[in-house]
Amino acid sequence: MKVLLLNGPNLNMLGLREPHIYGATKLPEVEAQCMREARELSIDLECRQTNSEGELVTWVQQARETHAAMIINAGAYTHTSVALHDALKTFEGLVIELHISNPHRREAFRHTSFVAPAADALIAGFGVAGYGAALRAVKALAG
Amino acid sequence: MKVLLLNGPNLNMLGLREPHIYGATKLPEVEAQCMREARELSIDLECRQTNSEGELVTWVQQARETHAAMIINAGAYTHTSVALHDALKTFEGLVIELHISNPHRREAFRHTSFVAPAADALIAGFGVAGYGAALRAVKALAG
Amino acid sequence: MKVLLLNGPNLNMLGLREPHIYGATKLPEVEAQCMREARELSIDLECRQTNSEGELVTWVQQARETHAAMIINAGAYTHTSVALHDALKTFEGLVIELHISNPHRREAFRHTSFVAPAADALIAGFGVAGYGAALRAVKALAG
Amino acid sequence: MKVLLLNGPNLNMLGLREPHIYGATKLPEVEAQCMREARELSIDLECRQTNSEGELVTWVQQARETHAAMIINAGAYTHTSVALHDALKTFEGLVIELHISNPHRREAFRHTSFVAPAADALIAGFGVAGYGAALRAVKALAG
Amino acid sequence: MKVLLLNGPNLNMLGLREPHIYGATKLPEVEAQCMREARELSIDLECRQTNSEGELVTWVQQARETHAAMIINAGAYTHTSVALHDALKTFEGLVIELHISNPHRREAFRHTSFVAPAADALIAGFGVAGYGAALRAVKALAG
Amino acid sequence: MKVLLLNGPNLNMLGLREPHIYGATKLPEVEAQCMREARELSIDLECRQTNSEGELVTWVQQARETHAAMIINAGAYTHTSVALHDALKTFEGLVIELHISNPHRREAFRHTSFVAPAADALIAGFGVAGYGAALRAVKALAG
Amino acid sequence: MKVLLLNGPNLNMLGLREPHIYGATKLPEVEAQCMREARELSIDLECRQTNSEGELVTWVQQARETHAAMIINAGAYTHTSVALHDALKTFEGLVIELHISNPHRREAFRHTSFVAPAADALIAGFGVAGYGAALRAVKALAG
Amino acid sequence: MKVLLLNGPNLNMLGLREPHIYGATKLPEVEAQCMREARELSIDLECRQTNSEGELVTWVQQARETHAAMIINAGAYTHTSVALHDALKTFEGLVIELHISNPHRREAFRHTSFVAPAADALIAGFGVAGYGAALRAVKALAG
Amino acid sequence: MKVLLLNGPNLNMLGLREPHIYGATKLPEVEAQCMREARELSIDLECRQTNSEGELVTWVQQARETHAAMIINAGAYTHTSVALHDALKTFEGLVIELHISNPHRREAFRHTSFVAPAADALIAGFGVAGYGAALRAVKALAG
Amino acid sequence: MKVLLLNGPNLNMLGLREPHIYGATKLPEVEAQCMREARELSIDLECRQTNSEGELVTWVQQARETHAAMIINAGAYTHTSVALHDALKTFEGLVIELHISNPHRREAFRHTSFVAPAADALIAGFGVAGYGAALRAVKALAG
Amino acid sequence: MKVLLLNGPNLNMLGLREPHIYGATKLPEVEAQCMREARELSIDLECRQTNSEGELVTWVQQARETHAAMIINAGAYTHTSVALHDALKTFEGLVIELHISNPHRREAFRHTSFVAPAADALIAGFGVAGYGAALRAVKALAG
Amino acid sequence: MKVLLLNGPNLNMLGLREPHIYGATKLPEVEAQCMREARELSIDLECRQTNSEGELVTWVQQARETHAAMIINAGAYTHTSVALHDALKTFEGLVIELHISNPHRREAFRHTSFVAPAADALIAGFGVAGYGAALRAVKALAG
Repeated sequence: MKVLLLNGPNLNMLGLREPHIYGATKLPEVEAQCMREARELSIDLECRQTNSEGELVTWVQQARETHAAMIINAGAYTHTSVALHDALKTFEGLVIELHISNPHRREAFRHTSFVAPAADALIAGFGVAGYGAALRAVKALAG
Repeated sequence: MKVLLLNGPNLNMLGLREPHIYGATKLPEVEAQCMREARELSIDLECRQTNSEGELVTWVQQARETHAAMIINAGAYTHTSVALHDALKTFEGLVIELHISNPHRREAFRHTSFVAPAADALIAGFGVAGYGAALRAVKALAG
Repeated sequence: MKVLLLNGPNLNMLGLREPHIYGATKLPEVEAQCMREARELSIDLECRQTNSEGELVTWVQQARETHAAMIINAGAYTHTSVALHDALKTFEGLVIELHISNPHRREAFRHTSFVAPAADALIAGFGVAGYGAALRAVKALAG
Repeated sequence: MKVLLLNGPNLNMLGLREPHIYGATKLPEVEAQCMREARELSIDLECRQTNSEGELVTWVQQARETHAAMIINAGAYTHTSVALHDALKTFEGLVIELHISNPHRREAFRHTSFVAPAADALIAGFGVAGYGAALRAVKALAG
Repeated sequence: MKVLLLNGPNLNMLGLREPHIYGATKLPEVEAQCMREARELSIDLECRQTNSEGELVTWVQQARETHAAMIINAGAYTHTSVALHDALKTFEGLVIELHISNPHRREAFRHTSFVAPAADALIAGFGVAGYGAALRAVKALAG
Repeated sequence: MKVLLLNGPNLNMLGLREPHIYGATKLPEVEAQCMREARELSIDLECRQTNSEGELVTWVQQARETHAAMIINAGAYTHTSVALHDALKTFEGLVIELHISNPHRREAFRHTSFVAPAADALIAGFGVAGYGAALRAVKALAG
Repeated sequence: MKVLLLNGPNLNMLGLREPHIYGATKLPEVEAQCMREARELSIDLECRQTNSEGELVTWVQQARETHAAMIINAGAYTHTSVALHDALKTFEGLVIELHISNPHRREAFRHTSFVAPAADALIAGFGVAGYGAALRAVKALAG
Repeated sequence: MKVLLLNGPNLNMLGLREPHIYGATKLPEVEAQCMREARELSIDLECRQTNSEGELVTWVQQARETHAAMIINAGAYTHTSVALHDALKTFEGLVIELHISNPHRREAFRHTSFVAPAADALIAGFGVAGYGAALRAVKALAG
Repeated sequence: MKVLLLNGPNLNMLGLREPHIYGATKLPEVEAQCMREARELSIDLECRQTNSEGELVTWVQQARETHAAMIINAGAYTHTSVALHDALKTFEGLVIELHISNPHRREAFRHTSFVAPAADALIAGFGVAGYGAALRAVKALAG
Repeated sequence: MKVLLLNGPNLNMLGLREPHIYGATKLPEVEAQCMREARELSIDLECRQTNSEGELVTWVQQARETHAAMIINAGAYTHTSVALHDALKTFEGLVIELHISNPHRREAFRHTSFVAPAADALIAGFGVAGYGAALRAVKALAG
Repeated sequence: MKVLLLNGPNLNMLGLREPHIYGATKLPEVEAQCMREARELSIDLECRQTNSEGELVTWVQQARETHAAMIINAGAYTHTSVALHDALKTFEGLVIELHISNPHRREAFRHTSFVAPAADALIAGFGVAGYGAALRAVKALAG
Repeated sequence: MKVLLLNGPNLNMLGLREPHIYGATKLPEVEAQCMREARELSIDLECRQTNSEGELVTWVQQARETHAAMIINAGAYTHTSVALHDALKTFEGLVIELHISNPHRREAFRHTSFVAPAADALIAGFGVAGYGAALRAVKALAG
């Protein structure tokens, strides 16, 4: 089973940016840990990050042919990107929306999501441990 | 580790009410399955359901003395109960907000949550499988 | 044919509270009159009143097994209770929303209804005579 | 007792327009049935329909001299006509607002009514059977 | 003169919950102090607390027959309960709305009150000392 | 100098409708008085009234060829008619908006005006005496 | 193929009203040009204009029996008429909404349309040349 | 009959400020002209201007003892001053609100008025000629 | 202990203005009564009133050096003055907001307060007796 | 005459994504058909598609030097991109906004357009046939 | 070149009020430093401060005759004063709006400005150093 | 001291686009002038421009390691980019927001800024001269 893990803008700064909110682990470590957990779950995982809305849209489109499920932490584009919303609607596999922190405890402009109405499920507020939880949930739902 | 699983109004109708949204499993089966998973995770789980806002508030208050974490599917009170919000603020343990469906795909009045700003983390849209995911997440975070 | 007549919060004060709006007849008299009219229409009527949102929710849930139709004057919970809305959605029989006064002539917070989108029909502004009209309408629709 | 039954725009299309919402009975049949029920209730009923806001306003004004009560299904003008609101305020008899479907289950722009604050009572959602219920209610209230 | 002191949801947690906002005194101590002050003012005081909206509504209704004035700290139901608003409207004695903290310095959802338009007067922000001030004010107004 | 005086919906009910707001003088008397005052001011006045939005629009259009100024009390269409707004924009003469009462002391839906942004000047709240004031003002401005 | 071209309020002023927005061509010329283009496209075209909302509603209703498609420039009723919206919903043929100017470059109250949700397609901003484009588009879609 | 003419902030700049809106006449000339017209109408007129909200409030309060009517052009305080609104409510004589231009043709923040709900009548858009019209209207109403 | 009592715009009209809302006692009597009560409480009280926003701001600033607490009835400036809000923020002593009537029972524009977020406590709706209650409360809190 | 046809995000998915809305034709086929129609109209057409907002902005800027007209289906960026709006404002040629479906029949967030106020004209709801209509309209307007 | 530096309400408290926001420098020191910098730039600077909205309005009016440019920190009146807006519109010289802190990082009611649409330029967030920057910018623009 | 000057979308069109708003100077000239001024101030300045939101985000992230301050004119992304906001929050140096024109004098959608709450200071409305002022301000603050 092939799963795509997409991280959006500023998630390449993980561990550097506001560690009281996002923790001290860096993105490569998170991705490495996800790869290990995926292997144990017999998931064939691919990890990508971009700051570009257009590139994120293109990756979601391409996954249509290649992946059965997607875990997406779209960062700030969660709150502004109708283009991402439209791209996710073209993807027929499972979509899990993920946030490291709980957006509802932050600024009001983080309380709306264009990803949510195109996602099957949502995990938020578990810190970087949420990535592992998402992988296990994908396995359970898709298995 | 003692964990409290609270289900709010109409969740006693699980399996009967709108099965295309909530699935066909009934609440006692969900709770039984949670008990089994909890035992495997060495969690001492207690399950309760009520249709009464006041009773839900009281149970959250009492957990302060007895439980280290709480998984709460507050049903419709999620969207209307400031009293529940206040009670959750008095609880110092871990709070996981849970929804069986993804509320952002439903009516607009389900898009706001008084539980969210008082919760540490959020799981939604995994169907009844979300309960197990929440238990494992509690274990991971609290372990 | 079994019909349930539910009255919500403060309707036990009928005849005492703001008689220029609600009239001078007390709730037991209204219920007695409804029982007489029901017998004439060969309706097996049951009447209940509660100030508790949770109890109202539970009664609506239980009617699923026992009653073919429901006449509900949810009083103030009309305007605030998503839980009641959800419970009414689990009831497959006929639902008639009833108000003694015309809510659109009163405060703005009485102009929205969580009962309305879950009801089949609506009667308002006929004073306590509306209860009899609702019974006859149930008979006509269900007959 | 003289009663005026007014139907507003597009109600001349009854039975043709969206029958899954309004049913298959045509307006002349509804009016004929109302005439029969009126005779039984010793009501002297007059029925009119128009697509013109101005004509509806004029008919309401003229009823002031000639009719003791009015049943009005103002169709779309319910939601937009302040002129109709003002005309209804000049009528001193009983005003019953009627809708065939339950407007609260339809588009948001049908959730406000300029007729409601000028009406004594409201009947909605009973299909064309609501017309008969309105006649009986007029009789009861005015008798 | 008989006065009823009602405390709503979560006020049973006084002294335990967010002491930087509400202080360290527990509810039984506050009530005991109120009883002493009431005796000095020749007020026959009765104190009650509940987490249930329905029970609060019922107590307000019953006070109609038994008490001349009411001091009510409705807690979170202040901001959400139309049912409580309606019950307070049936009470003909004096109604004093009380808050321990100043709600206008807190979250936006605490800035509206369904109690206020049904209350004669308002005391807020004096901590638990506000209860004594309310008793003396009742005496002054009613004396 | 030719001036057109237009009265909109329900102004034919003047003297009959809510006399505490609009006074007891009937429209023909008001128009007769206006004709007398116009003669003294050497104004060639024409008076019309209609309940129809379309007819009001047509009259405004036709005035373009025939009249130098217009006094318009559009009644309820003031608050709803974009068509009237557009028609007034085609008229190149002077436009005076007139209201018998002060709309800002009435319901909120009377606080907006589609006539105002297309009018040169506004007179309101002088009762039927406002018509004479408008005539004198037209004379002064156009003279 | 029979097509109906409807022009609403103030479009009879075309060429006279605000020519910097609508151009200098008058409505009869526009209609004559449309008739010529229709003949070339083998369309049997009928052209009508009215300032009356009720008449527009009636013409749309009648087209149900007689025409296969409709091009409608509803002018100001675009933004205010729920009655027109309802009438268009009864028409089963093709509906093309047309505007001479681009409404989004004008006042805010022209940015909403009650015609749009009942129309299949939209042409705006091409001046009077839009009428010909609409005819060709009808031919293409319906052919 | 004693009448007070109050001009608010920036009206001392009349003739200097934006003459395309307000005209070229200066305030002393306007006041002199008003004095002449007042004498002809046997009105004992007093004219004052201030840029200070507090002074305007005080003058309105003092007029209570001394004047029978007031013409007030409150300038920008029209749109922001609740204090002026309250002061006008203490004045029992006739209050005429006056504006030189038509505020509804200007910025949105000039479309609301705290003076209007405390005024008996309104004159706007007649340029400085509106002052004379207001004097004559006062005479007519009060005579 | 030095306490400053500030009354804002129109409170100099107390006893004259709308006595059904504010009572018949005049401001000098209220201040004299406060001075007597202050002496009993060993409070060194100073009383001032102004209609000027700027003067009120200046007095609040100056109190910083001279007074330990402030009771402020800012009248209409409560609802509009950010400047007063800022000045109160510079005052480090106790601030009590006071209203004679209950603003929540009055117009909507009296439901917001720029004083409240800068005040420690709030007393409203006790009529002029509220001033004495405020003095006793200051004593209790500051003692 | 050189014309640029720009397609924005997700339009490369045409024929794959939600065919019940967008039809089954793929983008290369649409572009090939447009090239054929352009040749017949003697238009020198260039077609481009991108998922990147920045690239779309750059292409619009560059067209300033090279193209006389632009047909733009900005997809989701229609609803969110102020940058695209600004770029279109720098283009002095003709701008036609195009949508395959009628956005007003879809989600509310598709009802606003940042392209519209910078476009000369608009074509929507004709499916992929709208591209040809746009080409012909460009020819007619620019010819 | 004559320049006027105006400081509004509470800026006389500079150095005393919330020094974590505004710094510890007092207003006289700021003004003295501005005088020195002005001399170096050959600017004839005049500095004034007031807590009164009316006085600020008057000073702005008078500057029309005497000064070529104005630097204005209107403090709280920035957010509430339409009168100040109108006065600034009468000043034909250069207007620089200045804030010591960045208002967009503070309460929502500081996010709107009535000064901004009447100002040529804006400097904010540089602390008291912003005054010198404004002087140099005035010199550069006006030189 | 290393400073980064970032210009966002459409600023590469400076001098070409709407010169009545932005002036006739082109971006390379502005940057050359900034380089000269920077050298005089001993600032090591780097200038970049992009139309891509993602590239802008990446540049802001990278500056974290290399630059002490940033001057950013984010153009249209100012009003829409939460991603840029998040990136700026990761930058620990000084952030100056710059606009060539005064956005508050333009369309409403330019009145909000996602840059402002992440910026230390703001300069707007000085035309391209604002860049030099920003450089000097950076020097003053950071020196």
